[in-house]
Amino acid sequence: MLRWMTAGESHGPALVGVLEGMVAGVEVTTSEIHAQLERRKLGFGRSPRMNFESDELEVIGGIRHGLTQGGPVAVRIGNTEWPKWEQVMAADPVDPEVLASLARNEPLTRPRPGHADLAGMQKYDFDEARPVLERASARETAARVAVGTVARCFLRQLLGVELVSHVVSLGDVNVEGDQLPTAEDLAAIDENPVRAFGDEATERMMAEVDEAKSSGDTLGGVVEVIAHGLPPGLGSHVHWDRKLDARLAQALMSIQAVKGVEIGEAFANARRRGSAAHDELFAAHGPKWVTRSSNRAGGLEGGITNGEPLIVRAAKKPISSLPRALSTVDVRTGEQAQAMHQRSDVTAVPRAAVVAETMVALVLAQAALEKFGGDSLGETRRNVEAYLAALNRRVDTWGEDA
Amino acid sequence: MLRWMTAGESHGPALVGVLEGMVAGVEVTTSEIHAQLERRKLGFGRSPRMNFESDELEVIGGIRHGLTQGGPVAVRIGNTEWPKWEQVMAADPVDPEVLASLARNEPLTRPRPGHADLAGMQKYDFDEARPVLERASARETAARVAVGTVARCFLRQLLGVELVSHVVSLGDVNVEGDQLPTAEDLAAIDENPVRAFGDEATERMMAEVDEAKSSGDTLGGVVEVIAHGLPPGLGSHVHWDRKLDARLAQALMSIQAVKGVEIGEAFANARRRGSAAHDELFAAHGPKWVTRSSNRAGGLEGGITNGEPLIVRAAKKPISSLPRALSTVDVRTGEQAQAMHQRSDVTAVPRAAVVAETMVALVLAQAALEKFGGDSLGETRRNVEAYLAALNRRVDTWGEDA
Amino acid sequence: MLRWMTAGESHGPALVGVLEGMVAGVEVTTSEIHAQLERRKLGFGRSPRMNFESDELEVIGGIRHGLTQGGPVAVRIGNTEWPKWEQVMAADPVDPEVLASLARNEPLTRPRPGHADLAGMQKYDFDEARPVLERASARETAARVAVGTVARCFLRQLLGVELVSHVVSLGDVNVEGDQLPTAEDLAAIDENPVRAFGDEATERMMAEVDEAKSSGDTLGGVVEVIAHGLPPGLGSHVHWDRKLDARLAQALMSIQAVKGVEIGEAFANARRRGSAAHDELFAAHGPKWVTRSSNRAGGLEGGITNGEPLIVRAAKKPISSLPRALSTVDVRTGEQAQAMHQRSDVTAVPRAAVVAETMVALVLAQAALEKFGGDSLGETRRNVEAYLAALNRRVDTWGEDA
Amino acid sequence: MLRWMTAGESHGPALVGVLEGMVAGVEVTTSEIHAQLERRKLGFGRSPRMNFESDELEVIGGIRHGLTQGGPVAVRIGNTEWPKWEQVMAADPVDPEVLASLARNEPLTRPRPGHADLAGMQKYDFDEARPVLERASARETAARVAVGTVARCFLRQLLGVELVSHVVSLGDVNVEGDQLPTAEDLAAIDENPVRAFGDEATERMMAEVDEAKSSGDTLGGVVEVIAHGLPPGLGSHVHWDRKLDARLAQALMSIQAVKGVEIGEAFANARRRGSAAHDELFAAHGPKWVTRSSNRAGGLEGGITNGEPLIVRAAKKPISSLPRALSTVDVRTGEQAQAMHQRSDVTAVPRAAVVAETMVALVLAQAALEKFGGDSLGETRRNVEAYLAALNRRVDTWGEDA
Repeated sequence: MLRWMTAGESHGPALVGVLEGMVAGVEVTTSEIHAQLERRKLGFGRSPRMNFESDELEVIGGIRHGLTQGGPVAVRIGNTEWPKWEQVMAADPVDPEVLASLARNEPLTRPRPGHADLAGMQKYDFDEARPVLERASARETAARVAVGTVARCFLRQLLGVELVSHVVSLGDVNVEGDQLPTAEDLAAIDENPVRAFGDEATERMMAEVDEAKSSGDTLGGVVEVIAHGLPPGLGSHVHWDRKLDARLAQALMSIQAVKGVEIGEAFANARRRGSAAHDELFAAHGPKWVTRSSNRAGGLEGGITNGEPLIVRAAKKPISSLPRALSTVDVRTGEQAQAMHQRSDVTAVPRAAVVAETMVALVLAQAALEKFGGDSLGETRRNVEAYLAALNRRVDTWGEDA
Repeated sequence: MLRWMTAGESHGPALVGVLEGMVAGVEVTTSEIHAQLERRKLGFGRSPRMNFESDELEVIGGIRHGLTQGGPVAVRIGNTEWPKWEQVMAADPVDPEVLASLARNEPLTRPRPGHADLAGMQKYDFDEARPVLERASARETAARVAVGTVARCFLRQLLGVELVSHVVSLGDVNVEGDQLPTAEDLAAIDENPVRAFGDEATERMMAEVDEAKSSGDTLGGVVEVIAHGLPPGLGSHVHWDRKLDARLAQALMSIQAVKGVEIGEAFANARRRGSAAHDELFAAHGPKWVTRSSNRAGGLEGGITNGEPLIVRAAKKPISSLPRALSTVDVRTGEQAQAMHQRSDVTAVPRAAVVAETMVALVLAQAALEKFGGDSLGETRRNVEAYLAALNRRVDTWGEDA
Repeated sequence: MLRWMTAGESHGPALVGVLEGMVAGVEVTTSEIHAQLERRKLGFGRSPRMNFESDELEVIGGIRHGLTQGGPVAVRIGNTEWPKWEQVMAADPVDPEVLASLARNEPLTRPRPGHADLAGMQKYDFDEARPVLERASARETAARVAVGTVARCFLRQLLGVELVSHVVSLGDVNVEGDQLPTAEDLAAIDENPVRAFGDEATERMMAEVDEAKSSGDTLGGVVEVIAHGLPPGLGSHVHWDRKLDARLAQALMSIQAVKGVEIGEAFANARRRGSAAHDELFAAHGPKWVTRSSNRAGGLEGGITNGEPLIVRAAKKPISSLPRALSTVDVRTGEQAQAMHQRSDVTAVPRAAVVAETMVALVLAQAALEKFGGDSLGETRRNVEAYLAALNRRVDTWGEDA
Repeated sequence: MLRWMTAGESHGPALVGVLEGMVAGVEVTTSEIHAQLERRKLGFGRSPRMNFESDELEVIGGIRHGLTQGGPVAVRIGNTEWPKWEQVMAADPVDPEVLASLARNEPLTRPRPGHADLAGMQKYDFDEARPVLERASARETAARVAVGTVARCFLRQLLGVELVSHVVSLGDVNVEGDQLPTAEDLAAIDENPVRAFGDEATERMMAEVDEAKSSGDTLGGVVEVIAHGLPPGLGSHVHWDRKLDARLAQALMSIQAVKGVEIGEAFANARRRGSAAHDELFAAHGPKWVTRSSNRAGGLEGGITNGEPLIVRAAKKPISSLPRALSTVDVRTGEQAQAMHQRSDVTAVPRAAVVAETMVALVLAQAALEKFGGDSLGETRRNVEAYLAALNRRVDTWGEDA
């Protein structure tokens, strides 16, 4: 079973991601991983800090000469700003006097509303928020993106699956229309400053960012991930924890600041009548012997992929650290205070879309391995091909027993 | 770690649920389980079939003299209609001639759009839909509700947690206002024919049901579950798969026909500016030393409960089996056909709310056991009390080191 | 991933086993499950109680018309003695006066050395041992055997794998020689009163049982399970928790009273020099292109099956309940006492062998599904065949690049 | 739930270990981790290669200023010989001509009997053994030892548990007597060239090593790990996969070349009569109100710790790479050949004992967290103390209800 873990703090020496269970023979290079990490930093409205993150990448294990080796893949992403943090975040004890002299080490006793700060301090019995925010920070997603690149390569090489993401709303600006971007559109989306598909909404979104920025405020939004090229049959209806929609929901909701998830047009569909909410089936010819006239189900029926594009959406709340500081309580004194404020991104929605792609890739790779088994790309692909051939053979026999 | 599994088919002899990892000493009776199973059948708009489901309940293990025993709890829910299905669903082979003579055994070759039917047949290589729909059916949730009752009792006895659910929209009718129901309101909600909180929307909802029914159509909707009384500190920010919001998302999305999940006001919050999207903190006195003026986060920050009521919502699509039959393809002939139609509920939203309560109870019980450990209710409760006392002690020391 | 759980108490109404993750299309009948349950009761030296266990079997779900359906398989094994225990083990509260009048309900306050009794009471905060022993009892293994039958059928139908077990030592009587029984020998072993392979040791073992019995004592022993027909490649060396030997060790050690496990001749091999401890490889012709002259590794190298018969052994301690009662402490008074004694089997080793077969079957089925994937027997078998063909193809290309 | 993963190849740039689920507040320093890594290299009979492994240690995350932070702990162990392997083990593709010129990159086509080599090549479809042996190598255990140090510190700080290991047999030389070493003996054992307890067997063992070496052979042996100071109640009898003996068995069997595991004197006990195989209970005074006159159960009854020292043994086969090369087949030609031979340790048994300690520490830490819960060392310790106090209180009430 494909598993993945991450470790490391936001200002520690490095992050690390480990992916266990991937087959041997998948082509991956460090430049591909690097490219995905760069995509994760895209987007208008980010702070200058991201620019410093020219990630130092080391593949610790699992890939040799550009091919996965069957063992765990581990990637280390060095923190280029580590020298500034070496004492504050040192693993070993540091002379208390030295620490006391460092402004960076000042205890963070004014927990920020909307963050894990206060609840984390209560849970772990900390008297300041640093140990919480260091791990709760969205910087951690870089490690997910690194190992998720392997899942992405696997899906493409195994099934021709292509993942695309875009921003469908930023603050209260929506992209109009419902055209679904394909793999061909991805480059344009990545170049779009707000990662929107189509130019129509771009300017309005940028204006929204500018306006929020000038008022010391932040923005949330909704991102959509589409997976093209999935066969029917990933996931299962037979047990609650094997449903693919449920596993996608967990994976997306685990992204920092994501608080809502829907498959296809779920919340809109809940308002429709049944006769207008499903995707009727029509007889067709050729290898795809059945067609649907719509994809309201977002490619999943009964927790199983149905062969249509998979469409999932995640709602991200606005960044919780605001220049226009929120009210909080200083836990050292119990007095009212202003929440600390550490950075000044206006929105993280464009890059959340890339992280969402990653999580979808990891879950789909896991489901594909469960369905098709195999320990080498060749073996898994052979199993896929035999399955797809059998699906088609079934169609050829129609009517024979009639 | 608390785990739960279910087994059994919709028309098989019985369903069974198993819950492993519950502490000893929780008070549960079969009448309590029965009461929850009855609540699961509530709601205007259901078909007469539900009335036949006067569930035959057997506690197979794990509870003795009204107390859990530390071992797995297993509950069997007998199918009162089993005699009608004994041959169709027999475990052992049945004389083919006998089977051929049974109308009930007619192969279901016209997969219903919106169901697992077709994707399930493709995945498992079936030439008809019966083996899929027997397990995909929402009847399975009865087994979840049965074992979830133990989780619900545990939460109440351990922490005083009370779970409430209600329907916040049915079709395109919304409940107006945003008052949060409490445990005291639950009886009234259960008596309300659409499980709405407050009478305001009830009539409009019932009219909507009537209208859908008369046009041979079905309705979806949105349900909300609230957990009152949770301490801060359940769940964790430290790893993607330990975030409580993510685990709740999986659990809710795993409910049949649920396609969307949000924590608090997630989708609305995604449109707000940061300054209006979070819950500011204010100094207070007494045991609850900090207050929030709002609960937009739905009781979860950074994947951890923050001491506010937990609020989660699930969007359910309209029932996929419609009297006004949808278009499909007969897999035996490849010809266009009408989807088979087996029952005539207009909506399952009111009872989905009860199932959603159950899934929330199971996930919260799991998180509480991880946080507090223990093997008997007494031990776990002792650990809870010491934790809560320590939270308060911390407040008493404010300013001492200032 | 294949998972299995059991529930139910020794004197409760029933046991239940659930197996989740099995493919559709495996042929299994209730009579096959019944036959395995009967095998579990084999063996000279058992108490008359076993005779009463003519198990009431109900397949609750997962099998229809003799074929698995892809969903969880659940089997309920009714306790034929339940009427005698209905009040003592009732799920719901029972009138205390009634309980007080029942000899069977007498608190078990003299924990038996060698059992979970005392440690279980301490862990779960019980003041008597009943709630512990009801679940710790080896009666629970009936549920494992029931669901394990499905794994056994799967392995045979998928790979032609046959499982054989036999008793290699009983008390201090060993079977001499090291001939490995095959599937053809299983019937004879099952008929052998001590489940030994070959007649040589049988009489000595029976004499040992008689002697132990006459002195009010009990016997342990060592059982061996062999799996014939496994392909190379199950399990993996890449991560500690994926090694097949490690997973077999957990599964066997989880059997009641088993305290030692070895793969092949592990403890003997640890004494040998390296030059005499491994299995050299020799070139051969035909489909099995490489041969080994020995199988000291027991069919596993580096945590992976190597194509030789899998051989595992489990050491079972003597039954802890002795007629010749052991010394204990009465936890009600703190006074020295004699351990309670509930039944009078001399040895459970012959039937432990059948349980050990079951656990091996479950672990191998799990490993086979991980390697080969698939959701129907046909699909998984197709993947197996393609893998085996590829192994052979590789041999055909030898020397081509030389 | 405590989880741990490792990644990295034997000759890659580094190994990495990740430990997720540890509480905050455990004191650990890099020098403590380093000290354990040094202990792992102990022992007469190792090759000079180990001397080069002066491990480059980096704590990537999870520890700050000498305390765990609640998040995953990750440790990277750099390979000091990496410059020699940079091209052979490069993550990215390397010019084939350059590779062809490197002797180190010569395809390893003569799989070694006793290793994962051949089975791994078959499973993962490799045409040489390098990708297999790089990950199957026991070098990987360094990563386990690194993260296991955190578990070891946790157990000591939480419960005062001390782990001791020693070699009880090397080749066919046994340590005589059955005295159990304590924490005070550990330094002497570590200084003993074969990590034996007591001088009695040391010379005979060293002579055995010398003799094996001079004949180009290798040795296996049996190691024992003892955990002193465990409370009763870790592990559980209620479900097969929660039994502590079973989980220890998996953990120990997962160590490279370990093929047998026993709890206490399991294989000897299987030969004894019941009356001589268990540990009778005797009334006592003071906090430890019950005593046992023996510890044949090795501290575990029914899969639960019983308060006695935990004793587990692991049988390790002789090193599979022998100077006196074994017979194999060259997979490139199908011809008979001599197995490749890469290093010249005579035995790895002394250091396997340290790895076994580590695995025991990890499993015990996991079990302790399940039993006691908590997110900070203070919280978990508070829960432990309350549990132990309750155990004693129970004794104080003896006879009250008599």
